[in-house]
Amino acid sequence: MSTHPVHLLVSCPDSSGLVSAMTGLLAEQRINILDLDQHTDSAENWFFARVAFDLAGSDVALPDLIKLWQPIAESRNMSWRLHDTEQRRRMAILVGQRDQCGRELLWRWEDGQLDCDIPLVISNHPDARDHVERFGVPFHVLPVSREKSAEQERDIRSLLEQHNVDLVVLARYMQILSPQFVNWLPNRIINIHHSFLPAFAGSKPYHQAFARGVKVIGATCHYVTEELDAGPIIEQAVVPVNHRDTLEDLIRKGADLERSALVTGVRLHLQNRVLVHGRRTVVFQ
Amino acid sequence: MSTHPVHLLVSCPDSSGLVSAMTGLLAEQRINILDLDQHTDSAENWFFARVAFDLAGSDVALPDLIKLWQPIAESRNMSWRLHDTEQRRRMAILVGQRDQCGRELLWRWEDGQLDCDIPLVISNHPDARDHVERFGVPFHVLPVSREKSAEQERDIRSLLEQHNVDLVVLARYMQILSPQFVNWLPNRIINIHHSFLPAFAGSKPYHQAFARGVKVIGATCHYVTEELDAGPIIEQAVVPVNHRDTLEDLIRKGADLERSALVTGVRLHLQNRVLVHGRRTVVFQ
Amino acid sequence: MSTHPVHLLVSCPDSSGLVSAMTGLLAEQRINILDLDQHTDSAENWFFARVAFDLAGSDVALPDLIKLWQPIAESRNMSWRLHDTEQRRRMAILVGQRDQCGRELLWRWEDGQLDCDIPLVISNHPDARDHVERFGVPFHVLPVSREKSAEQERDIRSLLEQHNVDLVVLARYMQILSPQFVNWLPNRIINIHHSFLPAFAGSKPYHQAFARGVKVIGATCHYVTEELDAGPIIEQAVVPVNHRDTLEDLIRKGADLERSALVTGVRLHLQNRVLVHGRRTVVFQ
Amino acid sequence: MSTHPVHLLVSCPDSSGLVSAMTGLLAEQRINILDLDQHTDSAENWFFARVAFDLAGSDVALPDLIKLWQPIAESRNMSWRLHDTEQRRRMAILVGQRDQCGRELLWRWEDGQLDCDIPLVISNHPDARDHVERFGVPFHVLPVSREKSAEQERDIRSLLEQHNVDLVVLARYMQILSPQFVNWLPNRIINIHHSFLPAFAGSKPYHQAFARGVKVIGATCHYVTEELDAGPIIEQAVVPVNHRDTLEDLIRKGADLERSALVTGVRLHLQNRVLVHGRRTVVFQ
Repeated sequence: MSTHPVHLLVSCPDSSGLVSAMTGLLAEQRINILDLDQHTDSAENWFFARVAFDLAGSDVALPDLIKLWQPIAESRNMSWRLHDTEQRRRMAILVGQRDQCGRELLWRWEDGQLDCDIPLVISNHPDARDHVERFGVPFHVLPVSREKSAEQERDIRSLLEQHNVDLVVLARYMQILSPQFVNWLPNRIINIHHSFLPAFAGSKPYHQAFARGVKVIGATCHYVTEELDAGPIIEQAVVPVNHRDTLEDLIRKGADLERSALVTGVRLHLQNRVLVHGRRTVVFQ
Repeated sequence: MSTHPVHLLVSCPDSSGLVSAMTGLLAEQRINILDLDQHTDSAENWFFARVAFDLAGSDVALPDLIKLWQPIAESRNMSWRLHDTEQRRRMAILVGQRDQCGRELLWRWEDGQLDCDIPLVISNHPDARDHVERFGVPFHVLPVSREKSAEQERDIRSLLEQHNVDLVVLARYMQILSPQFVNWLPNRIINIHHSFLPAFAGSKPYHQAFARGVKVIGATCHYVTEELDAGPIIEQAVVPVNHRDTLEDLIRKGADLERSALVTGVRLHLQNRVLVHGRRTVVFQ
Repeated sequence: MSTHPVHLLVSCPDSSGLVSAMTGLLAEQRINILDLDQHTDSAENWFFARVAFDLAGSDVALPDLIKLWQPIAESRNMSWRLHDTEQRRRMAILVGQRDQCGRELLWRWEDGQLDCDIPLVISNHPDARDHVERFGVPFHVLPVSREKSAEQERDIRSLLEQHNVDLVVLARYMQILSPQFVNWLPNRIINIHHSFLPAFAGSKPYHQAFARGVKVIGATCHYVTEELDAGPIIEQAVVPVNHRDTLEDLIRKGADLERSALVTGVRLHLQNRVLVHGRRTVVFQ
Repeated sequence: MSTHPVHLLVSCPDSSGLVSAMTGLLAEQRINILDLDQHTDSAENWFFARVAFDLAGSDVALPDLIKLWQPIAESRNMSWRLHDTEQRRRMAILVGQRDQCGRELLWRWEDGQLDCDIPLVISNHPDARDHVERFGVPFHVLPVSREKSAEQERDIRSLLEQHNVDLVVLARYMQILSPQFVNWLPNRIINIHHSFLPAFAGSKPYHQAFARGVKVIGATCHYVTEELDAGPIIEQAVVPVNHRDTLEDLIRKGADLERSALVTGVRLHLQNRVLVHGRRTVVFQ
């Protein structure tokens, strides 16, 4: 029997009866709950929830359900969003010269692990072309220079708009985006940084980690905000290292972490499991 | 403002409206939900939930709430249990000659990390006396011999009954309990086994692991059932090892895993976060 | 300045002066040691060593060095082997229907992380063809049937001999090899098993793990011996799982472990870092 | 048969024949090598070694061996140190109000896992007295105030000198030591910091980590230098956290990491496995 899952994400001040209000509406409409996750941040007195429900068994159409939902949401000061899983997301990948992270995403996507379309990959270098086109995905090169960075960013945005992209993944893209660009897609630009942030923000984190002599390295998947490497963290992965590891070993081991943390973060986003609250995330797993 | 948390655990065949039925009753009684966790096992079509709610803000008394709850539970074929956190659990620890796991529990308990009373520790060896009595907990020695094992077990049970114990923790106790004993406290006897089960069940798991040349060792915290080392697993912890690790190193590193996995498992049980379903557990964390 | 590394692996009964005997010969010939690792198994009184030395700075030719080395080795009852890194190994990959592990190896190899040639990939299924040929590696399909398994194995061996293969990697090949085949390449057939052995040996380990309700799953990279899933372990990787993980989730998460453990095990083998002693391995990292 | 292990640690510019020179001398004196570890930092062209040898089987006395060793060491510009394991180290522990780390050290020491004497524990708070004296170790309280911190430090140093202490462990001592104090015992003061440095240096790292919304927390065991939380790292431990973890949960989970990383770091130091080179350490495990 087929299902038609819809995901509802809610964030609001905590008050009593919130879960009951949400689930009561669904019960009235004879809509089955597939999965419900709820979290109350007692320090901030804030409520978060994710409900996956099945529209297949119900007579009510989604727009009508939303009409019934809106007054409930308003009365509780909810921010909420709803994602009909029959509408596939459109994800663009931006890669730099090292394309392992981009390739990993394409591989997982080809294997059916990422529920989205990938209309294009953009790079400022031509090197990744062969690796990308193997997957049947169009590859665009938009070189960047110090003088023309604003122009290049405008071209990227225009390409993304043209392809109706609603999620941008920076897979070791290594260029800093302007605040205008970042604010165009709030909480919809995902970056992988090659350190366990906030340690070693900025450039050359493996060099920094090597010089500091750390015994653990990491990778951080986070939403991009105006402040560099300071956006809400979705996922972090770590691995022990020791004195035998050269800088090259750190880079190699770290590349595995980057691939893994980025794929996990992107999958969680696509499954509507991530709620941002200030600089923190609630990740319903 | 003080709270009066009550934990409700539910396990039943899945059907629509379950969450709504549970939370609706609480909303009607103006009872605030502190935490709600729900899981549907889609393979077995089974529903599990844990609701922590606050009785402090409500006019209804717990017995009256239960009366309102019972018809709902019956109509859905629920098995359920409810734990009023104002009733402290009474936990007994059984230790053998190596008492690190027992000491770790006592330490955490003294630090306020385990929400229970510990009326006694029982051992078949006198060695742990000093370590136990440091914590102000009575220590009983009931030696065991091949011929008198049934008698010794009877004495243990009688001591436990005398102290109204409702949770027994085998902290490297190393004696096999009879089916009668096990069935007396179903899902209320917790054991720590010093391997990542099902590998190396039975005796001398570190010796087995050393001989097999594994690169990872583990510890398993599980409920005790009639079948040796085969009960539902609550928690497992693992750590890498290598050829430099002698048998003694495995035992030392493993002891840390045992302590950690046992404390975690016991804490989860005391917080009413564990539901058993067949040979598997649902652990709401 | 270029180097010409040679790897010497030694295994023998322990006695005094072993390291001195080895390093003394190299010092006399003015050969620089790049890396030296030594291990004494005090339980078995056995000595293991790996020396990486640089032939580039020396006047002596490798065959002459070996002549000087042989009497030392004989007097100490050493088993030893020597690998001139200028001779590239020839590795064949055997894959089944699920080819993620095989692809991961090809990817790493293309990135220069595996120091070997890959003259061919063999499968009993045609499915992986596209994924393999992307990397410019010839792909051979040799279907297997219950009646013709001996014949198919003979064909595989003949292909491998034809291509002078000296390392065979079973990347989720899922067919059991005959003792004759296994003994043809002792400690040179590497398998990835999708569980933390010795737990869940044999078929469908993820199904077994799911049914048992474990909280950790794993993957094991090991040398193949006559006894199924019982060969010396090179590497194991593990990841926590919980009740929310379906069987499909275990398979997906496990696939990442398999890729990682297999690549690590193969790399360690190619770098001559693995010494087998009975059922155990010494892995110099 | 008893052994008399001696540990030799060497650090010097790399050159050929170093291992041979070291092991040759021992072989001449018929001294058996128990364990040899060597590392060449190819980026800095620096050589490190640790040799554990057995004086029991030899006719030469340690002072005579040193006389033979000195010219070798000088000719190669070695820094070296030698530790006769029959001379037990004397370790002092400094604790603050939260004494879990201190207790863990005492526990391990009582269990025979730390090869040293512990002549005293010092605290600026009286709270830990009972926990310390349980282990039969004298407990000294030296309260600190802003005005009298120099005086208090002088008193600590005088106590340590009086007890011939050669290793000081700051087990969550939470006071900053003066450069004079730090330089009195270079690379012999070990601290545990409750974050994965360099992230969250300074005070209240769990609060910082919570506010930043990290998905991994850590603990760092390092040598103390003049610069706060910037000394060479011996060991780091990490654990995943998520949005359900309150600040109190971070503190509780972190306390386990602190205990584990500190014990590991101290054990490695006592086994003479740690060599400091600039801001980095070589840790032979």
